[in-house]
Amino acid sequence: MSVYLHDIPLPEARLRLEAALRQAGLWGLLGSETIPVDESAVGRVLVEPVWAKISSPHYHASAMDGFAVRSVATNGAMPNAPVTLICDESGAQQRAAYLDTGDPLPDWADAVIPIENVEPLDESGRPTAETRRPHNIRLRAAVTPWTHVRPLGEDIVETQLVLPAGHTLRPVDLGAVAASGHVQLKVACRPRVAILPTGTELVPIGQPVKAGDIIEFNSIVLAGQVNSWGGQAVRFPIIPDRFELIQQTVRQAAEQHDLILLNAGSSACAEDFSARVIETLGEVLVHGVAVRPGHPVILGMINLDKAGSRSQTPIIGVPGYPVSAALTGEIFVEPLLAGWLGRRPVEPITVSATLTRKVTSPAGDDDYMRVAVGRVGEKLLAAPLARGSGVITSLVRADGITILPRGSQGLSAGAQVNVRLYRSPVDLERTIFAIGSHDMTLDLIAQFLAERDRRLASANVGSQAGLVALSRREAHLAGSHLLDPETGQYNLSAIRQYLPGVPVKVVALVDRQQGLLVRKGNPKAIQTLQDLTREEVIFVNRQRGAGTRVLLDYQISRLGIASEAIKGYNQEEYTHLAVAAAIASGRADCGLGIAAAAQALGLDFMPLFQEHYELVILGEFYNDQLLAPLFDVLGDERFRRAVAALPGYDISRMGTLVYKVS
Amino acid sequence: MSVYLHDIPLPEARLRLEAALRQAGLWGLLGSETIPVDESAVGRVLVEPVWAKISSPHYHASAMDGFAVRSVATNGAMPNAPVTLICDESGAQQRAAYLDTGDPLPDWADAVIPIENVEPLDESGRPTAETRRPHNIRLRAAVTPWTHVRPLGEDIVETQLVLPAGHTLRPVDLGAVAASGHVQLKVACRPRVAILPTGTELVPIGQPVKAGDIIEFNSIVLAGQVNSWGGQAVRFPIIPDRFELIQQTVRQAAEQHDLILLNAGSSACAEDFSARVIETLGEVLVHGVAVRPGHPVILGMINLDKAGSRSQTPIIGVPGYPVSAALTGEIFVEPLLAGWLGRRPVEPITVSATLTRKVTSPAGDDDYMRVAVGRVGEKLLAAPLARGSGVITSLVRADGITILPRGSQGLSAGAQVNVRLYRSPVDLERTIFAIGSHDMTLDLIAQFLAERDRRLASANVGSQAGLVALSRREAHLAGSHLLDPETGQYNLSAIRQYLPGVPVKVVALVDRQQGLLVRKGNPKAIQTLQDLTREEVIFVNRQRGAGTRVLLDYQISRLGIASEAIKGYNQEEYTHLAVAAAIASGRADCGLGIAAAAQALGLDFMPLFQEHYELVILGEFYNDQLLAPLFDVLGDERFRRAVAALPGYDISRMGTLVYKVS
Repeated sequence: MSVYLHDIPLPEARLRLEAALRQAGLWGLLGSETIPVDESAVGRVLVEPVWAKISSPHYHASAMDGFAVRSVATNGAMPNAPVTLICDESGAQQRAAYLDTGDPLPDWADAVIPIENVEPLDESGRPTAETRRPHNIRLRAAVTPWTHVRPLGEDIVETQLVLPAGHTLRPVDLGAVAASGHVQLKVACRPRVAILPTGTELVPIGQPVKAGDIIEFNSIVLAGQVNSWGGQAVRFPIIPDRFELIQQTVRQAAEQHDLILLNAGSSACAEDFSARVIETLGEVLVHGVAVRPGHPVILGMINLDKAGSRSQTPIIGVPGYPVSAALTGEIFVEPLLAGWLGRRPVEPITVSATLTRKVTSPAGDDDYMRVAVGRVGEKLLAAPLARGSGVITSLVRADGITILPRGSQGLSAGAQVNVRLYRSPVDLERTIFAIGSHDMTLDLIAQFLAERDRRLASANVGSQAGLVALSRREAHLAGSHLLDPETGQYNLSAIRQYLPGVPVKVVALVDRQQGLLVRKGNPKAIQTLQDLTREEVIFVNRQRGAGTRVLLDYQISRLGIASEAIKGYNQEEYTHLAVAAAIASGRADCGLGIAAAAQALGLDFMPLFQEHYELVILGEFYNDQLLAPLFDVLGDERFRRAVAALPGYDISRMGTLVYKVS
Repeated sequence: MSVYLHDIPLPEARLRLEAALRQAGLWGLLGSETIPVDESAVGRVLVEPVWAKISSPHYHASAMDGFAVRSVATNGAMPNAPVTLICDESGAQQRAAYLDTGDPLPDWADAVIPIENVEPLDESGRPTAETRRPHNIRLRAAVTPWTHVRPLGEDIVETQLVLPAGHTLRPVDLGAVAASGHVQLKVACRPRVAILPTGTELVPIGQPVKAGDIIEFNSIVLAGQVNSWGGQAVRFPIIPDRFELIQQTVRQAAEQHDLILLNAGSSACAEDFSARVIETLGEVLVHGVAVRPGHPVILGMINLDKAGSRSQTPIIGVPGYPVSAALTGEIFVEPLLAGWLGRRPVEPITVSATLTRKVTSPAGDDDYMRVAVGRVGEKLLAAPLARGSGVITSLVRADGITILPRGSQGLSAGAQVNVRLYRSPVDLERTIFAIGSHDMTLDLIAQFLAERDRRLASANVGSQAGLVALSRREAHLAGSHLLDPETGQYNLSAIRQYLPGVPVKVVALVDRQQGLLVRKGNPKAIQTLQDLTREEVIFVNRQRGAGTRVLLDYQISRLGIASEAIKGYNQEEYTHLAVAAAIASGRADCGLGIAAAAQALGLDFMPLFQEHYELVILGEFYNDQLLAPLFDVLGDERFRRAVAALPGYDISRMGTLVYKVS
């Protein structure tokens, strides 16, 4: 009997899983084991409190290198009325005995005088160089009882609480545990998690790929997550889409694991397979949760009737798209492991930030939106990243997650949102936010900035949109190459238009060639913009507001070419590389762009124009500490050589201040 | 030649080490190795940027289960003007072909129509249940090109930067690395760190201890630190204080490790040994750094002249006191490892907090003060913990470190300080700050609160000081047992005195017996307070302002006993357990305290009085979400049973609201 429970709300899905786990006796701590107190215990979770078995110090210890004395024997000692004590261990009133730091105080003593505060004397009462074993010592100051003594229990008193249950052990904790007399610790067992990738389309890493093949890496991401959350991941080999084979492997995995992650292919068909396998071996509790990405998740329970041993194993059908898979890990697997380990779930630091652009969201789902976060002046900004569940780089680039809750259809630009951070807030303070036109140099800048304690977060929105964002102070700088047809100058008139009254400084980055990207060998013999109007030629364009688009529009209007005459004029891409990829894949025959993008993807390049690509920097940040490393990079010979090696790039003006607008 | 360079400033010490490392060619990346892309790569550091080798998707992929079509063939399709396409792979104009999600788009197609948006038909044009392989499909809406297609490079475009060098790999990164065509990664070698504990007084964990023995655990703390910072720690067995043996082990360690941590005993003598060993095998660069705790640290370089292999190995003489050892790890070892790994040093989150009490500091040193941190209302508070370098629990309990810089002689209460946090700021928001009198129940409350997503940070300052702190809003609640001799009532008159006009609620915790703690068998036959005046009886007292002290003073004044008549009256301890420890160790014969403390340390107990121990809670926090779990604990049967099992405790009033002051 098929249970299809599509897109139930997340809290309800969690409750169903909890109820099933409770019924199976699998809610709460999974099990415990005893391990020795050594560095391998770091990261393990205590299942019971640690109470001190002995005190620390477990005896009265000298806190200095010096002489144990009875304090009463020093009474009356003054600079001009010294007291002399005889060095032996007898404990008689006027005696003293040398101790190293940490040595036990003799029973008869109640204080220690540091070695540097006594005058060592020989048998005849003369000063001696034998500081540790003199015959007598002379003092010129009295001491009070317990001076320079670390009394028993100074650090830890027997029976006191050292660490509570549920605590995740850190290196220093092990010191305190050892000091309080423990040799072993009772910690939670690491839950064993089987990860089963399924899909005939999957190929393992390292194998050559053809169209339709998908490199299997979700199992690695999930295994990395499981291990870092305190579980023990076991990756199974790829299982092709054969029902019996999946069924058999799940049954086998259930025998030796505490949890199964069954990673389906991304098609609805593969998901059905997972659900059917779970049905035949147990029960589907939830099929479809109202979260995005990740809604095709399945929660279930495998029931194997084996006398004498535990027969139930929870199973999670993990969706195939990589972002969905990774978020399923965070949303379902982490809290489950936390409960089994007896620790608190991982709780990310949450900050409030300003959304940089409008976003829409399906009203029925909790929408996990990946955002880049950085500080521009006083404002913390959250810039939404690619939303697709297939775009794993959106998770790699994400500084955090903003959840657009069920019921919300989206948010407008400028809205305050809570961001659950993936990185330390410290990192946000060293982030340079760049927006605007895309140039390949920005990737190189990012790499060179990383060596200089800065991060570059860049959003590719085109030159014009970059200047508009700058006017809203949503970035520190914008890359721009907007030609003013009237003056032939770059960027200045656009700055006056989009940034009126805003002080900015403009720094040259590169001069670069723009031209036509065509397939290798130029099969359609495309040479000029005139060729774009030919019947058999399909063009791929840049988006409105991109400098390259402005350049195209200017040049075709000069030539009297109507945009309607160009097939594919409305097919827009956001970066040079995306244009090149469209041509390389055969989706288009040509596009306007830079030589480096052509070279990167093995295309031919027909140079047409030379243009200035500049960095427009908000004046208030120009001298900021934050940006200083950027200027270092522009002057770094290694960086300049790397850029100059890109085809069609001229670095002769790089780093020069072109002009200021104040 | 002995180099004694005592207590040079930290930045200078670092510079000397850097200079020596540079000269030895050991500054910067230590080495790299190639590892496969799998979950074991998590935590490793990239030594070179990862550029995409292939695009992802590496072909145009269907984003849905549906039918590949030429979009032009759907032109004109409307609800009342359907278009019918024939399902085959020919690619002719009016054709369609079924695709699963992820399947490659056929060359001839440029869009995908989801399966739920078509009507499947059989050969005769009638609807069919064969949704995936129908004869024809009928559509009632046109599609634009590239609808429901994930174009080549949607996620990653060949040649783009995927991850910069210096990046520490997380699980999701490995997905992106695999998707971009990588099979292997070049990462920094994990530096091999030898940890050598030295000291004849050291005994390994698990061995019985006698006075003077010190349990060796610094090597575990250091090894745990090294491993968590990306190194590979190797712990050596304890080396007794024999010069040749230490020398020989250091020489041997230098041959196979990148760094040696030579952990000396805590005596000045042991430190000299370390310095002399380093001198004979190489060079002492720094002996003594102006940091506290940790100033006897030694930085040096071992020079082994062996042709053909690297002959220099840095060595750090780590001080023997546990807090000094752990901080030496943070101050010197972590940045060194970061440099060798090519990653940024660990940078803790820093918050600004208000100091709860005055602290003094040696003006010559950077003073690393451990603090407990928590929020009380709007204010973040930093409460200084024990300062001794032997008190490892001060590091365990520390929520962060405040550095009192060289030149500062201390700070007054209320000063704003920067705290480098050891834990997530999220934890600070779930901390209940308790101050005041110590009762053993507080340890149990801490344990039970930990199960309820709360932390208890408690400072033992005595009842009176607790009420004063409460009046400054430096805690949420105070434990107090202050008898008013006039009325016989507890706490009320003290609250009126110390918290005038402040609304508070007082909740009963326990009624408990106070009495005399004496050694097992009561060798000095101490029965009453009168016995304290006997010549041979040494008393240990609680500090001024403690409820127990108030009780003592009240009772001896009733009996007409002068405090001067009691030997040890001025010897003060801050907790019941500390009083018990003083008696157990023979430092005193008796003290006033609670039965539970006597039982914990195997003492005898002579009950004298019954008293109320109450929680005084600031009114504004009484109904706060933060404190709710505390009241849960007071009602928890497991907790009540655990408290009732303590000797001399009566829980009958536990949890009742005794009175409010508003």
